[in-house]
Amino acid sequence: MTADTPHSAPAQTSLTEPDFLRVLKGARLASPPVWFMRQAGRYLPEYRALRATAPDFISFCLNPDMAAEATLQPMRRFPFSAAIVFADILLIPEALGQKVWFEAGEGPKLGELPDISVLEANVPFAADRLSAVGETLSRVRAKLEPNRALIGFAGAPWTVLTYMIERGSSNREHARSYAWRNPQHVDQLLAILVESTAQYLAMQVKAGAQALQIFESWAEGLSESQFRRLVIAPHQALVSRLVELGVSVPVIGFPRGGGGLSLLYAQSVEVQAVGLDTSTPLQLGRDIQKLRTIQGALDPLALRAGGPELDAEVERLLDAWGQGPYIFNLGHGILPDTPMAHVEQVLARVTGRGV
Amino acid sequence: MTADTPHSAPAQTSLTEPDFLRVLKGARLASPPVWFMRQAGRYLPEYRALRATAPDFISFCLNPDMAAEATLQPMRRFPFSAAIVFADILLIPEALGQKVWFEAGEGPKLGELPDISVLEANVPFAADRLSAVGETLSRVRAKLEPNRALIGFAGAPWTVLTYMIERGSSNREHARSYAWRNPQHVDQLLAILVESTAQYLAMQVKAGAQALQIFESWAEGLSESQFRRLVIAPHQALVSRLVELGVSVPVIGFPRGGGGLSLLYAQSVEVQAVGLDTSTPLQLGRDIQKLRTIQGALDPLALRAGGPELDAEVERLLDAWGQGPYIFNLGHGILPDTPMAHVEQVLARVTGRGV
Repeated sequence: MTADTPHSAPAQTSLTEPDFLRVLKGARLASPPVWFMRQAGRYLPEYRALRATAPDFISFCLNPDMAAEATLQPMRRFPFSAAIVFADILLIPEALGQKVWFEAGEGPKLGELPDISVLEANVPFAADRLSAVGETLSRVRAKLEPNRALIGFAGAPWTVLTYMIERGSSNREHARSYAWRNPQHVDQLLAILVESTAQYLAMQVKAGAQALQIFESWAEGLSESQFRRLVIAPHQALVSRLVELGVSVPVIGFPRGGGGLSLLYAQSVEVQAVGLDTSTPLQLGRDIQKLRTIQGALDPLALRAGGPELDAEVERLLDAWGQGPYIFNLGHGILPDTPMAHVEQVLARVTGRGV
Repeated sequence: MTADTPHSAPAQTSLTEPDFLRVLKGARLASPPVWFMRQAGRYLPEYRALRATAPDFISFCLNPDMAAEATLQPMRRFPFSAAIVFADILLIPEALGQKVWFEAGEGPKLGELPDISVLEANVPFAADRLSAVGETLSRVRAKLEPNRALIGFAGAPWTVLTYMIERGSSNREHARSYAWRNPQHVDQLLAILVESTAQYLAMQVKAGAQALQIFESWAEGLSESQFRRLVIAPHQALVSRLVELGVSVPVIGFPRGGGGLSLLYAQSVEVQAVGLDTSTPLQLGRDIQKLRTIQGALDPLALRAGGPELDAEVERLLDAWGQGPYIFNLGHGILPDTPMAHVEQVLARVTGRGV
């Protein structure tokens, strides 16, 4: 689980392992593995058709038939190196007793934040309540080709907490203000999320996840001191707790919007890989690559725009980061109105790199 | 105008100059100068009363009586080291022929983006049309104590262009997409904004501005290649053009949201100081300080929250950056609902540093 050793020792990796896992362990490949955040999603017509058969989004996520199908759809269409289980980061608050629902076109809504005691009482049961996600993983792993990896994931404690505090989507200003004003309460809530998330991720690994990604979608706008308290400390606690629970698969931490603080994150949290967002300086990526595998960071807007500008941007990323342990990905989730031809355009360029 | 020489040579500064200007030239003071972005604004009851007397926001900005009074209000109440002229970054599109208006509670609205030819034809007249801002500067300079500096400012070309393209406030996704899809058109528009902004800033210096700040409020979310094209290149052109126009006052560039790219900015653009936003790593600030004076970066949410957490955050900034050439400021504008007592709390701590 530790990543103390730099990536110069890929000896532990096996040639029979999926490339994606080999690179997470430090291997440098001529052609990087590639997957896209939200690759199972609304840009696919087959996803939209499937989604239309479910009464609501939470039911869709917790139905292993539907979620496994959604997970596999992009794998049939594109040569992605890894699948990521179809689920949502807000399943955790739901499992902890805070009501979550989605209104069409409006994003998530959450009910009142329960008292600490109520949340704490729910912690031992949260992973069990999400056993459907484990069932999805088992089914996908059984159907996925052996050279393609399966990723489990969860929202990071702070990001999930921003939703729990704000009770919906926003720029997180209220949650960040809350953290300045109520540091002790926020620390208590984060501890609850660390424990329930660790158990949830451990359950996913038992069910078939071969790697884990922790989505810190709202690392942006935090001062260094808040980033240390709200992002780094809970990620450290989560990674330690996973080790205690016997989890030994590689972990990708993705502090989206962390900007220059991504380096501090890479230095402080013993994940195997760091996900980088769109605005990561190329040199900063190279600096982080000395410590961890990196993953990212094509602008989803460039992907949607297509054309020669897209090709040029892909080349810049491959030139800057392709030499080190690198997983090609976007810097944020794929946009629903992205043409599938642009996905093909990028994949041809990335997977053709080593030929 | 150049900042090629590192800050170890403050010999050119004079003891009779305002501290703010001395630090922009590289002086290191035991107690840093301090001002707050949007220090003239809605958190002040006297500002709200004054603003209520104007029919609309553009008229307010272009009325030297009112704008000078708004500029001076925070200087009477607090020991800020510098005043910043009360104006708006959207005066430039208005002067270039794109209609701008403000609807209460909704932020700015802009009319249709004129053709390149129309905008170009307006460039020679834009600074003249904004001569009221020069008049405001003259009046403020005449009333301000000699040990306090007066700052002129403009929006950076890309930031202003995002408003011109999006025709209002948003997350800038449309403008960033437009830049991927229409790079040549965007370059043409940026060139127009560089020239008109340079003339506007030169006019401000003639009228009494002793330093200039370029507000790149929307540097966030850009990949390095887009940051180079949309932020760095226009800032370089703007700084060069100011030199050609005979401007010799110090310039502060503020690429807000640039994250790790702020270092590339400091290395590439010959401004005298770099404004840092809330999420700047402390070490990155120190790295930039080797090249330029730095300014920032207290979280406005911490200021609004107050209490011991605010004191601790101020101390962290002073400890990290107080040794080098440093101007204390926020990482973003002061929020309208900030208690004035919190401003006093911070100023007492910052200005008491050297005692």
